Amino acid sequence: MRVSQFPLNTLKETPADAEIVSHQLMLRAGYIRRLASGLYTWLPLGLRVLRRVENIVREEMDRAGGLEVLMPAIQPAELWQESGRWDFYGAELLRIKDRHERDFCYGPTHEEVITDLVRREIRSYRQLPVNYYQIQTKFRDERRPRFGVMRAREFLMKDAYSFHLDADSLGQTYQQMHDAYCRIFQRCGLDFRAVEADTGAIGGNASHEFHVLAASGEDAIAFSPGGFAANVELAPCPSAAAPTAPAQELQKIATPDVHTIAELAAFLDVPTERTVKTLVVAASDAVDADLVALVLRGDHELNDVKAEKHPWIAEPLRMAEAGEIRTAFGAEPGSLGPVDSPIPVLADHAVLAMADMVVGANEDGHHLTGVNWERDLPRPESADLRNITEGEPAPDGSGPLEIRRGIEVGHIFQLGDKYSEALGARVLDEDGREQIVTMGCYGIGVSRVVAAAIEQNSDERGICWPTAIAPFDIALCPIGAKKSQRVREAAEQLHDELQAAGFEVLLDDREQRPGVMFADMELIGIPHRIVIGERGLDAGELEYQARTAGEAEHLPMDGLVAALRERTGHGA
Amino acid sequence: MRVSQFPLNTLKETPADAEIVSHQLMLRAGYIRRLASGLYTWLPLGLRVLRRVENIVREEMDRAGGLEVLMPAIQPAELWQESGRWDFYGAELLRIKDRHERDFCYGPTHEEVITDLVRREIRSYRQLPVNYYQIQTKFRDERRPRFGVMRAREFLMKDAYSFHLDADSLGQTYQQMHDAYCRIFQRCGLDFRAVEADTGAIGGNASHEFHVLAASGEDAIAFSPGGFAANVELAPCPSAAAPTAPAQELQKIATPDVHTIAELAAFLDVPTERTVKTLVVAASDAVDADLVALVLRGDHELNDVKAEKHPWIAEPLRMAEAGEIRTAFGAEPGSLGPVDSPIPVLADHAVLAMADMVVGANEDGHHLTGVNWERDLPRPESADLRNITEGEPAPDGSGPLEIRRGIEVGHIFQLGDKYSEALGARVLDEDGREQIVTMGCYGIGVSRVVAAAIEQNSDERGICWPTAIAPFDIALCPIGAKKSQRVREAAEQLHDELQAAGFEVLLDDREQRPGVMFADMELIGIPHRIVIGERGLDAGELEYQARTAGEAEHLPMDGLVAALRERTGHGA
Repeated sequence: MRVSQFPLNTLKETPADAEIVSHQLMLRAGYIRRLASGLYTWLPLGLRVLRRVENIVREEMDRAGGLEVLMPAIQPAELWQESGRWDFYGAELLRIKDRHERDFCYGPTHEEVITDLVRREIRSYRQLPVNYYQIQTKFRDERRPRFGVMRAREFLMKDAYSFHLDADSLGQTYQQMHDAYCRIFQRCGLDFRAVEADTGAIGGNASHEFHVLAASGEDAIAFSPGGFAANVELAPCPSAAAPTAPAQELQKIATPDVHTIAELAAFLDVPTERTVKTLVVAASDAVDADLVALVLRGDHELNDVKAEKHPWIAEPLRMAEAGEIRTAFGAEPGSLGPVDSPIPVLADHAVLAMADMVVGANEDGHHLTGVNWERDLPRPESADLRNITEGEPAPDGSGPLEIRRGIEVGHIFQLGDKYSEALGARVLDEDGREQIVTMGCYGIGVSRVVAAAIEQNSDERGICWPTAIAPFDIALCPIGAKKSQRVREAAEQLHDELQAAGFEVLLDDREQRPGVMFADMELIGIPHRIVIGERGLDAGELEYQARTAGEAEHLPMDGLVAALRERTGHGA
Repeated sequence: MRVSQFPLNTLKETPADAEIVSHQLMLRAGYIRRLASGLYTWLPLGLRVLRRVENIVREEMDRAGGLEVLMPAIQPAELWQESGRWDFYGAELLRIKDRHERDFCYGPTHEEVITDLVRREIRSYRQLPVNYYQIQTKFRDERRPRFGVMRAREFLMKDAYSFHLDADSLGQTYQQMHDAYCRIFQRCGLDFRAVEADTGAIGGNASHEFHVLAASGEDAIAFSPGGFAANVELAPCPSAAAPTAPAQELQKIATPDVHTIAELAAFLDVPTERTVKTLVVAASDAVDADLVALVLRGDHELNDVKAEKHPWIAEPLRMAEAGEIRTAFGAEPGSLGPVDSPIPVLADHAVLAMADMVVGANEDGHHLTGVNWERDLPRPESADLRNITEGEPAPDGSGPLEIRRGIEVGHIFQLGDKYSEALGARVLDEDGREQIVTMGCYGIGVSRVVAAAIEQNSDERGICWPTAIAPFDIALCPIGAKKSQRVREAAEQLHDELQAAGFEVLLDDREQRPGVMFADMELIGIPHRIVIGERGLDAGELEYQARTAGEAEHLPMDGLVAALRERTGHGA
């Protein structure tokens, strides 16, 4: 391909409203353009990347035995009413009335449609297991779309749904999908982690998320050298240990103008690990109170997902308002503590191992120091309520945890019979008895993978694509082409030769200055560059540079294709 | 691929609600399933065909210099308001409100979105011409969806939009698209015609439709041996010739119970060519009357598209109601005529060449015979108002016309500046002056091509795919596989060998009876079949049969790949 026929749409300025690197670079490098909030047009360069990711996903899904289908994007409300999700799904579901005032939605996911298909088509256990997938444009009416295609309203998704007679069969396909996902992200050239995830409202037995590691990721994930990996949302913390013996007397201390844990630790000159924070949340019906006091070590963070699962706590989790707290405690949120708490106290396990604690006095501007369990207050009920932290041992004993940010690009689920039960998808088993089928689902955010790849692979000059998903493998930059027919001809010849050898080549035939060409090719992120100039031609050499390498090297023109195969990892 | 891993979903019965062959066969052969009115799921077999057509379209669009993009399916109302189509488009436009109550639509077409992109991205004539295309799911909220994917609400479309500084450049790209479309439909193996078409409400200079010839086609197209081809809607009829001399006297005759032209011709024993029919339509503001009487030869059909273009006739064309006719003529519709017409008369050119005509007497149950122009009534205004008929000479003198039914699968348009003017898409020309760009658009109904191909290629046993778009090239049917390990092994080996040679192969490994295998493979339409049996293996032969050939032939196993390349036309 030549730039004269494949125009670039690079921009000099970084668009002001783009917050994260991938969004900025996709706009600057001419990969996407915004049509409206959360709606993007993929320009030719961007679409090439999207298609390369899509093709890798398709190849691996096919290899894993998936059967590709294409379901309608527009779905009738009746099916969502059958599953109960029409009312449950909320405002993210784009609801539509057709010309006859019938209700439809633009599908954000297809459990209902595929289960409807299966209940009509599949009658016998002999037709199972089966794993249907599609690669399709989906719509989720995000309250606040942002970060470009990372959190767009319209996006490209691979969604797969498998059906089984029993849990064993589901487990096998689930493992095949896990492996296929690993191959997909490996082939895309991404540093990723598969982590245990929350099964959330869907229930089911198992769930894994696939995260591309990048500093801008919305999720924190914890993993150990020995192979433990989980979303911090889910990673279990150690259970309660016995406290060390008390060394201090209980004291009440005036702490004027102290409102945060950091201020408290500084004021008293104690480490934050000795302080305790008290958070007040709404109680569930299981408790004879409106509120519950959660106490955590001062340096620990409340884990909402874990808290919400505790029977005492109302779901969804709701922090108490200042007025409610004042009424219950007679004190402001900055001075609360578990001693003589007017409401039930639920402690994080780690708090029970503490001694000589610093806690709020339930009196404005005052704290207690030297607080110890049993002696000063009863040991409360405890639970795992916090996020695990870097350096703690992995729950499975596989070494100390590292915590990194991740961008969720894939999610696999053992759904069980939630949808097949609701829609009545049954087959006859070996004994001729009707059985509800069991189900798995497996998603990849194809367009999100593109953005995540950039978050992980960029520098100050632009994108650094992994070769497998780059829009082009090799950029050809002829120097002095305006004046030199020899350079022009050599560039054209090289273009044809490399293309014939199976490389995707972009020849910059604009006859621009080297600086302009290099800047554009680096911005758009082509992973390999060849410079063609008079001097090199004299010497029978070409200058080769990898996008991420500091140094250029000179490659002899003889044997160039083989040398490039080696450097690009391009086998074809 | 093996049937055990790629299950077929064939049905024994023809679904009752499927009216046309392609819809029946796509259901029976397991290509599609209905989700809701006008919404279909493509099953694995169907999707393979859809993707093959899609790939041919993409390759030829790329070859013709098209740049593939992907625009959002959901479009903001503001752009449609700018072009004026938000109000104009009618109920086929699926209108949507998002969670913030903002107006959007599910795009049935993308002129507005692409013109918006071009007005932002393209500043200079040097960036022109450019031709963007996409292959995307579209939605048109048909009043009465039917015929399966032929007239579905959700469908796959290739839409392209080109932008130019001037009409010459547009003309060149238009011709390139014309040629690309011819290659696409040729490569798909379809018998098609490119015909001149009505530019309709869009205006512009030129428009061609591409029709797949099939008896079930909704359009009539006229073509000559010498290369004339046009939609009958548009094909011009000869202009008025002088009448022959009168031979009969004017007579009024009672014609009781005669309501149609056929009844009239039979009652009077005259050919229908001697009769005249009078149709009453609403008048435009250009006429000092509410209605206009259109007179045509009894055997001719009114051409709505031509009639609508006449300045006297209201647009859209509206036939007068019985009450209006009675008020104006004092007679029922079956007895109207141009003699002493109370409203203006507009004749089709052919009527002016008639003599001794039979016309309604404007008196119930009576007709006039022997009616002649000048002598009995003044020669009225005339125009081309009718459909051209089989056997008439082509307007360009290229021989007698043949008329066939066609299914429109493509449409190309020279749009001009309709959208670029409305949205203000301007570039600087060579002299630095701002110019509105000029525009072409080019569509192919990708999913409709699949249905049209079946309409053209089926028999009583099922579909007869052209090889290029078949889901598989070759079906392998092992006979007696249940008992013979040798047959099973030979079939497996052949499967791998042919697949390695680049063929798409479907091995029926269900160990079914030959009749069941053959019926399924014929129903789904695999164009080439190889039967593997003990007897053939003894002789070193395989039985080969093309789907459309009467006779099987025996091919030696040595050199099989080459023999199949020849028979399938598969070069790879």
